[in-house]
Amino acid sequence: MKKVAVVMGSDSDLKVVEKAILTLKDYGIETEVHVYSAHRTPIEARDFALNARENGIGAIIACAGKAAHLAGAIAANTTLPVIGIPIKASVLDGMDALLSTVQMPAGIPVATVAIDGAENAALLAIQILAVEDKDLAQKLQNARNEKMQKILAVDKEINQKYN
Amino acid sequence: MKKVAVVMGSDSDLKVVEKAILTLKDYGIETEVHVYSAHRTPIEARDFALNARENGIGAIIACAGKAAHLAGAIAANTTLPVIGIPIKASVLDGMDALLSTVQMPAGIPVATVAIDGAENAALLAIQILAVEDKDLAQKLQNARNEKMQKILAVDKEINQKYN
Amino acid sequence: MKKVAVVMGSDSDLKVVEKAILTLKDYGIETEVHVYSAHRTPIEARDFALNARENGIGAIIACAGKAAHLAGAIAANTTLPVIGIPIKASVLDGMDALLSTVQMPAGIPVATVAIDGAENAALLAIQILAVEDKDLAQKLQNARNEKMQKILAVDKEINQKYN
Amino acid sequence: MKKVAVVMGSDSDLKVVEKAILTLKDYGIETEVHVYSAHRTPIEARDFALNARENGIGAIIACAGKAAHLAGAIAANTTLPVIGIPIKASVLDGMDALLSTVQMPAGIPVATVAIDGAENAALLAIQILAVEDKDLAQKLQNARNEKMQKILAVDKEINQKYN
Amino acid sequence: MKKVAVVMGSDSDLKVVEKAILTLKDYGIETEVHVYSAHRTPIEARDFALNARENGIGAIIACAGKAAHLAGAIAANTTLPVIGIPIKASVLDGMDALLSTVQMPAGIPVATVAIDGAENAALLAIQILAVEDKDLAQKLQNARNEKMQKILAVDKEINQKYN
Amino acid sequence: MKKVAVVMGSDSDLKVVEKAILTLKDYGIETEVHVYSAHRTPIEARDFALNARENGIGAIIACAGKAAHLAGAIAANTTLPVIGIPIKASVLDGMDALLSTVQMPAGIPVATVAIDGAENAALLAIQILAVEDKDLAQKLQNARNEKMQKILAVDKEINQKYN
Amino acid sequence: MKKVAVVMGSDSDLKVVEKAILTLKDYGIETEVHVYSAHRTPIEARDFALNARENGIGAIIACAGKAAHLAGAIAANTTLPVIGIPIKASVLDGMDALLSTVQMPAGIPVATVAIDGAENAALLAIQILAVEDKDLAQKLQNARNEKMQKILAVDKEINQKYN
Amino acid sequence: MKKVAVVMGSDSDLKVVEKAILTLKDYGIETEVHVYSAHRTPIEARDFALNARENGIGAIIACAGKAAHLAGAIAANTTLPVIGIPIKASVLDGMDALLSTVQMPAGIPVATVAIDGAENAALLAIQILAVEDKDLAQKLQNARNEKMQKILAVDKEINQKYN
Repeated sequence: MKKVAVVMGSDSDLKVVEKAILTLKDYGIETEVHVYSAHRTPIEARDFALNARENGIGAIIACAGKAAHLAGAIAANTTLPVIGIPIKASVLDGMDALLSTVQMPAGIPVATVAIDGAENAALLAIQILAVEDKDLAQKLQNARNEKMQKILAVDKEINQKYN
Repeated sequence: MKKVAVVMGSDSDLKVVEKAILTLKDYGIETEVHVYSAHRTPIEARDFALNARENGIGAIIACAGKAAHLAGAIAANTTLPVIGIPIKASVLDGMDALLSTVQMPAGIPVATVAIDGAENAALLAIQILAVEDKDLAQKLQNARNEKMQKILAVDKEINQKYN
Repeated sequence: MKKVAVVMGSDSDLKVVEKAILTLKDYGIETEVHVYSAHRTPIEARDFALNARENGIGAIIACAGKAAHLAGAIAANTTLPVIGIPIKASVLDGMDALLSTVQMPAGIPVATVAIDGAENAALLAIQILAVEDKDLAQKLQNARNEKMQKILAVDKEINQKYN
Repeated sequence: MKKVAVVMGSDSDLKVVEKAILTLKDYGIETEVHVYSAHRTPIEARDFALNARENGIGAIIACAGKAAHLAGAIAANTTLPVIGIPIKASVLDGMDALLSTVQMPAGIPVATVAIDGAENAALLAIQILAVEDKDLAQKLQNARNEKMQKILAVDKEINQKYN
Repeated sequence: MKKVAVVMGSDSDLKVVEKAILTLKDYGIETEVHVYSAHRTPIEARDFALNARENGIGAIIACAGKAAHLAGAIAANTTLPVIGIPIKASVLDGMDALLSTVQMPAGIPVATVAIDGAENAALLAIQILAVEDKDLAQKLQNARNEKMQKILAVDKEINQKYN
Repeated sequence: MKKVAVVMGSDSDLKVVEKAILTLKDYGIETEVHVYSAHRTPIEARDFALNARENGIGAIIACAGKAAHLAGAIAANTTLPVIGIPIKASVLDGMDALLSTVQMPAGIPVATVAIDGAENAALLAIQILAVEDKDLAQKLQNARNEKMQKILAVDKEINQKYN
Repeated sequence: MKKVAVVMGSDSDLKVVEKAILTLKDYGIETEVHVYSAHRTPIEARDFALNARENGIGAIIACAGKAAHLAGAIAANTTLPVIGIPIKASVLDGMDALLSTVQMPAGIPVATVAIDGAENAALLAIQILAVEDKDLAQKLQNARNEKMQKILAVDKEINQKYN
Repeated sequence: MKKVAVVMGSDSDLKVVEKAILTLKDYGIETEVHVYSAHRTPIEARDFALNARENGIGAIIACAGKAAHLAGAIAANTTLPVIGIPIKASVLDGMDALLSTVQMPAGIPVATVAIDGAENAALLAIQILAVEDKDLAQKLQNARNEKMQKILAVDKEINQKYN
């Protein structure tokens, strides 16, 4: 199975992005984790992207805050799907990172998830790998079913408490 | 090869979303196009999503405006990757659709592209299909190379005009 | 008298929405409280809405955060009045939930109240039940009169303190 | 059956709000239409609200733009449900009117619909009257069914065009 | 000399608005302080405004949060200058109150100051009284001069510290 | 009676601000109109402000767009009341001008009206002059009464048309 | 004297950026104009930046719209001053480009001017070259003086028209 | 070598702006630090700007919050490059200061950096001085190289931790 790479613009993003790494590991996905900055290590970020497909990577999660260019900079150098996590890293509540990540020009898409949405970035990467992998797709469905059961249990409890 | 489905919340979205359909056809991807509303035909939208994987679909593009729930409603009923296009369909310039599409809760990701970003939605779907398809990946790379050549030709022209 | 249902997208919303439940109980309204997610338990959310009128419910309060689809998803499956409470549940201060709740497409209204406006959601539900119930209308008026008297007492106190 | 009142802050709002009046008439609801300004005819706006219940009104639709106080000013003087339509009437795209209408303080709810959402305001008023009126509820359901059939017909057409 | 009235929509605003009261007292201005709500005590708010000029008031400061209608409601009932202080009282950082206060329709101005700008509201009221009062104008100028001297002293200190 | 000065940052603002000039003339107020830029003619703007009180001016209306500093620059050099009109002069719909005008630091208030709110700026200036001028106050009240009568006439007409 | 480079992300930006080119030519500055995209020609954009200083360039103006990464991508590869012009190129009025350009992480500054602010970008570049060039500084001052005289002439005209 | 001046609107900005002063000192740049307010010490702010070039200053950093006019007020009185730091000093998260600083009218540019972006303001000033100073340019490049090495070291560490 292909690997999923997780690239963050700064190690200060790790406290958010770790949830993505752990989610991928929960599903048995091999990960490759990097700290590359679009602005401070542009060469390494580019080289990583250029070689990602050959290195057995199937999807790339990139997260950055403020003028969040990392996902776009990686997407510019690979035709693999790139998933962008906008990080709340400034006083603007992540709105700067969201717009910098999602409003990409025609030709270079970035699959953007919610601000600080690390878990969903991982799940989206797994969904991409699961397009051609029925077992993985079943694992995703099982996890949803479990979550559903938990919510219904909570529903029962709260329903009884207030009625 | 898997198909890509394109679902729009209203046929008034067609003028934006047609670019996605045509881009998919340019790449020889088989498409399945629907008009389903999360609010006005909720059953059909759900049934479509529940059966999409079995129907040979590999990725779903969903677009809607205003309180744009369609991508989320479909994503809730499939583990296939769902790509959301927020449509500018109200006085709020598509910001309502962007936030309604991208800010999904943990567990149900939507891969969001730019407001009215139909071409990128199609390219992202193709990138997803190309994870395991080297020929398709090469086609994507070729198109990028062509675009690059066009920009460099324009660069030459403008460079000479002003220098 | 008809019941008022209160549905929340996650039990983490309870700390906000409990004020709605307690306000309804203060007025002697029978409540039915649920935790249903538009995305994680879409079937239960839909079935609840489809059967709400027959189950003696007169108005439904739905609250959710981020890409807050719950109120819209319920409104799509009932012609009862649905009151949406946008919840501040992300870094965007509830603006994402407000736009996802209020900007509904033509055909499926959601009666939206302020962000985290649980008390007003309950009062609005009671006002709806009071359209045909003079005693309930009088209770609402009495509560307003009491509140008015309290403000006037505070006015007196502060007026004297500073003049 | 109770009447629905439609109050607009300025006759320039009529081009938006007329859709609400016509929708109400489509359902056979008796209407009472007024032009009252919270700021320029405060006494008439208040007197209208104070007497609305006695005058056989069951729900009030109020629409205004900019610092849109009309719905709130009416809601302050009646315990009937008040539905607010924020109108795009300034350079700020109706965001000023939306926040002025929806962010009401605890005690005085306004049921807010989308910016310029006149049709939904009317449908919400009808849903309120239909809580205790099965025939009216059935009419609402029939209209939804018709709309659903229309969308499915469009779906068929577009599905065939592009597949 | 005329009095300045200070009206707040809720006594929870007092922690912000007290600065206005104290600033007025510093200048020897007689104040009249009230807690009136545009929505919960609309009659008292209106009666206060209607009688303000006769009661020797020369300017009115009104402050409120969220859908901040108080300044507008008072301005609708007097031709005295009304100064509005938008209060940060919701999750939206006072932007709701700012737009609800400043975006008044033609005919009924509200002189709006910064969010939570209580001191400036008081100074503006004093400037209004000082249009025809040279002594008061001189006091305002003296206070500015003192403030200027303080800044220049701080400038000297910081200039030396870092150079 | 004191004069009202109207200062605009650019003659391109004249199409908005002329309404203020004409409103002042309607009330028989003597005006003094200037085009001064806070950035391009800073000395003239300052000198105007420093001498305004001695030149018989009672209130100053200043309007500017984008980073609208003009009202603040004038307010910094006079203790007369300064009324700021934020002008929509950029792609940001006047929100830049609104925040640049209203968010003044403590010590230097600017009485801000709505974006492009020229008529209200003039009325506010007249209200300031009318604090000590009963005849002028009566004129303002008469104009309001006329406006009220016009609205009530429109109300009658529309009420009959739709009922 | 050093050259100023002007780089645009797309030739569709030319209608805005041409003003910068012409302003530079007015001052006799040699220009070098390019169309390079951060995402579609990342190598050329980088190589241009890496060699800019050696090629006799003293300042670089970069303009782009939407998720405007161009200025940042160039700034990452040179220590020359990079001036960013956010372009209004999407439905979001240029706010996306502004935040993508200005909110740069520590270490890699971009000198951002107003949305579509091409003339100011050129003037800023000239000011940078004029730090060590008295003649150029004098030219800038002369242009300001001329502009000032023009405004004062307009002031005179409008002053007489309305007084 | 020319000096860099750092001007802040209030000494409360020092906790943000000190980073700029220290960064300049790290590079051996002589600084001149001032506390001048555009509104409270307008004469000193202007005189400082008028004489800056003669006083050996090569670039000016100006920072202010709220309606942040300081950078613009200084830029109006010098043709030296003026770098604006918008400060988060109000409830609006610095968005008011950003727009007040960056949206300058044609003719008077301000080189704006990120909200609270003091380090980048200093680096930009140094880059401006380094246009004609190869040693300083090399120092900037060396610092970038060191930062790059640090990131790559962190990358190695995190890469090993998670793989």
